[in-house]
Amino acid sequence: MKAMEEKILADGIVLPGNILKVGGFLNQQIDIPFMTEVGKEVARLFEGEGITKVMTIEASGIPLATMVAQAMGVNEVIVKKHASANLSKDVYSAEIYSYTHGNSYMAVVAKEYLQKEDKVLLVDDFLACGNALKGMMKMLDDAGAELVGCVAAIEKGFQGGGDDLRAQGIRVESLAIVESMDDDGSITFRS
Amino acid sequence: MKAMEEKILADGIVLPGNILKVGGFLNQQIDIPFMTEVGKEVARLFEGEGITKVMTIEASGIPLATMVAQAMGVNEVIVKKHASANLSKDVYSAEIYSYTHGNSYMAVVAKEYLQKEDKVLLVDDFLACGNALKGMMKMLDDAGAELVGCVAAIEKGFQGGGDDLRAQGIRVESLAIVESMDDDGSITFRS
Repeated sequence: MKAMEEKILADGIVLPGNILKVGGFLNQQIDIPFMTEVGKEVARLFEGEGITKVMTIEASGIPLATMVAQAMGVNEVIVKKHASANLSKDVYSAEIYSYTHGNSYMAVVAKEYLQKEDKVLLVDDFLACGNALKGMMKMLDDAGAELVGCVAAIEKGFQGGGDDLRAQGIRVESLAIVESMDDDGSITFRS
Repeated sequence: MKAMEEKILADGIVLPGNILKVGGFLNQQIDIPFMTEVGKEVARLFEGEGITKVMTIEASGIPLATMVAQAMGVNEVIVKKHASANLSKDVYSAEIYSYTHGNSYMAVVAKEYLQKEDKVLLVDDFLACGNALKGMMKMLDDAGAELVGCVAAIEKGFQGGGDDLRAQGIRVESLAIVESMDDDGSITFRS
């Protein structure tokens, strides 16, 4: 999506440690008109696939997943990072290692929100090593639900998670794939 | 909002400890068509107020805040519960006690996303003691931004947070106010 690349070049900031800061439009402040268009673009990409649910993991993927689900006219399921008092014991779970935070956490979703008839699109803001997506895929497997594909607003191509999933035959649509980032702040996209 | 009360009665479950489980449509699985309508209703309630930003705190208020911001045509700002490597040191912060989790956490928002010219609507899924809203109000004060009002999908009237804010002259619009919940599962709304 050319518009996503242009947005990253206009508003993104490269920080030391291969961090791409896009808080101004994607996950701290949400550029609502732009993200609404992104949601529509994702719905267009997966038109006719019969998707019944959009699934994401809290917290920074939620705005995009909400926009995608709205454009598709289906419900959204949010995987929780921490079990809470409000969460039934009857859950699908996966341990996920967070590259950003440098630790692992237990992710859970109530079984009642995933049926074996569901055809699910996984959505997140970033795709780096792909650990969050892989954790959600385990949950879909446990539920017997069908994985239709994965969407990321921004894929860090150099971290390999997206290509690893593609090599397994999984459809991965990233709206922009960053191939490299340099200390001078320049960003190269995969063509 | 009559539709919110009807939704709670249809899909909500009362659990021991004054917990109202509404994960089926509000914060674990999102009923997208319903929540889209809720967003429009909130935009209608605050029409003409000149709101420039909708602000919420991660994670469960994000879907509603996204819908409200979209219906208003303004951007959304998401307060983070945990400082991360991607977050600048230049933040407004507040310590917030979570009734649900029984602990305190440090909430932060980057200063660049709140300007003193902003007229802000605070949005969350639940309003109980009001601690999350009060924490966000401190951030608005620190930024010199204007608080226009607060919105909750569901207010637990018996916990007093909403009335406390109203007594301070703050406009609080809750789409449903639960006055009491009984162990037999019955729910009484404020009329």
